Amino acid sequence: MTQNGFHVAVVGATGAVGQQMLKTLEERNFPIAKLSLLASSRSAGKTAVYNGEEVIIQEALPEAFEGVDIALFSAGGSISKALAPEAVKRGAVVIDNTSAYRMDENVPLVVPEVNEEDIRNHNGIIANPNCSTIQMVVALKPLHEKYGLNKVIVSTYQAVSGAGAKAIEELKSQSQAILDGKEFTPEILPCASDEKHYQIAFNAVPQIDKFQENGYTFEEMKMINETKKIMHMPQLEVAATCVRLPVETGHSESVYVELGENVSSLEEIKDLMTSSEGITLQDDPQNQIYPMPAHCVGKNDVFVGRIRRDLDRNNAFHLWIVSDNLLKGAAWNSVQIAESLIKLELLN
Amino acid sequence: MTQNGFHVAVVGATGAVGQQMLKTLEERNFPIAKLSLLASSRSAGKTAVYNGEEVIIQEALPEAFEGVDIALFSAGGSISKALAPEAVKRGAVVIDNTSAYRMDENVPLVVPEVNEEDIRNHNGIIANPNCSTIQMVVALKPLHEKYGLNKVIVSTYQAVSGAGAKAIEELKSQSQAILDGKEFTPEILPCASDEKHYQIAFNAVPQIDKFQENGYTFEEMKMINETKKIMHMPQLEVAATCVRLPVETGHSESVYVELGENVSSLEEIKDLMTSSEGITLQDDPQNQIYPMPAHCVGKNDVFVGRIRRDLDRNNAFHLWIVSDNLLKGAAWNSVQIAESLIKLELLN
Repeated sequence: MTQNGFHVAVVGATGAVGQQMLKTLEERNFPIAKLSLLASSRSAGKTAVYNGEEVIIQEALPEAFEGVDIALFSAGGSISKALAPEAVKRGAVVIDNTSAYRMDENVPLVVPEVNEEDIRNHNGIIANPNCSTIQMVVALKPLHEKYGLNKVIVSTYQAVSGAGAKAIEELKSQSQAILDGKEFTPEILPCASDEKHYQIAFNAVPQIDKFQENGYTFEEMKMINETKKIMHMPQLEVAATCVRLPVETGHSESVYVELGENVSSLEEIKDLMTSSEGITLQDDPQNQIYPMPAHCVGKNDVFVGRIRRDLDRNNAFHLWIVSDNLLKGAAWNSVQIAESLIKLELLN
Repeated sequence: MTQNGFHVAVVGATGAVGQQMLKTLEERNFPIAKLSLLASSRSAGKTAVYNGEEVIIQEALPEAFEGVDIALFSAGGSISKALAPEAVKRGAVVIDNTSAYRMDENVPLVVPEVNEEDIRNHNGIIANPNCSTIQMVVALKPLHEKYGLNKVIVSTYQAVSGAGAKAIEELKSQSQAILDGKEFTPEILPCASDEKHYQIAFNAVPQIDKFQENGYTFEEMKMINETKKIMHMPQLEVAATCVRLPVETGHSESVYVELGENVSSLEEIKDLMTSSEGITLQDDPQNQIYPMPAHCVGKNDVFVGRIRRDLDRNNAFHLWIVSDNLLKGAAWNSVQIAESLIKLELLN
């Protein structure tokens, strides 16, 4: 770093997450001496705004990483596969928001509230987990630490912005077409690269990302495998069903947990959530207070509510977890990792 | 009955479910000698169409049930409480689609595919279960019969039509307001009789019906208690989280089941679903075939898909269950009960 801060590169600056990265770096007043915005050749020459100033977007070529201290990648797995090693070779630390390196055993997969210390083991690349995984483990961590954790079953209610800017546009135009009684042709969701596309407006689609051979979607397997890795719990029982909803931003999760011991009072769990980093408790059923995607947009925290004791097992509870999938699920968690790198003095 | 059929009364004929009742009676060519459409004094004098003919709606007074053989109630719990006994006193068999009598131990709670024989024990009233319960037990029944059933955890994705015609209107007008960037004031959802109202368009609201003292909503407790009653399994472990979505019609459910024994092949469960009454299997992940609310509207069946083996427990599975909440969840199940009454020769 120079006296003024770091040379930061954002790869994929024009995407839905990239835009939130710039906003978050601004808001956090991140110590940036130089900012390089990188994208595909298609976007090179365009500009993006950072702190009120226009920055010209350069093509993301290997040489563009010369002198970069921190490179935030969010431009798809294949670009990370190709360019993250180039950035590392040139001395940058890469924080990668794609699934390319998440399960690589040489790459730490980090949610700072949960496993910040894992950053110390990085070999140039640190992976940012899947959005739906991040918000869940933030809530699971304090439960595990205090009571132990045996089993997790999650059903998700995911927003379309997780599938990018085109998916948001599709939700809007399709909603309008249905309200007008007009025809429409689904083209993006549930998964742009898959063969069939289905109506998302006024519908619920139980497919996020492609299906694997075991009948689970890749999104579901990400939640299962990433949770075990982040929490250092290979034996943890985790199951996931991931569903896309006609919501623009904000993922919700209905989560069942079996803890390692019985908990005598519900208040104890609520207090634990209130005192945990990165969590806002919104849990007052009698006053209809609970988290909802429409109320979480633009906020960094993970919102937890509807905490209930299971009616059959004394060690089991139900939670409703909501967060902005573009912030804690992506941009904010990436910038948090960058801040942790500074705090842990891991940047040269 | 007369030679031509039965005298049927429909109470609440102008509501979202009442309209589907008339349609379903038509489609089933139900043996009706005389049809009485009953509603509040507010709707009396209006007309509804049955088999192409206009029928004048009468006020639902006790005397209106004179001579009625079958009375289908769907006009709210307080009306059922007040008038169902009056109908029974006059010799009618009541099929009640409200929650008024469901947990009454003198009233059978019936899903014909599951517990048709319970109808024999009726004392004038037969209760139609909650919409989200019905579609779930249709899928659970064959699993329980073949393997035994220990535990069920369900997270629902429920359509607004379950909250009536005004809720549908609110979803549409609110969606339009948001697309136009205009202001709006939520007035109906999540629960018309509760204090606060929240945005439903492009949102997910974890409240259906009012909260109970234990932190569960009444809808969640309905699913838990009704499932145990219908299946005659007071010891069954059931947990539910109920969520309202911006979907007009069609409830979806993410269901985790622990069976009484291990199952050697997934195909065996798929075959079981295919051969079970009232179920259509839609489960071919490689070809992106799975149930969705947008595709179930207007169909009587319960659609089951995304059947997966739990990755941790050999006796556990995950299912995705979708059905038209106004049909199998309400009108069709009620008419089915009426058909069962005839089949079992329980009408005088």
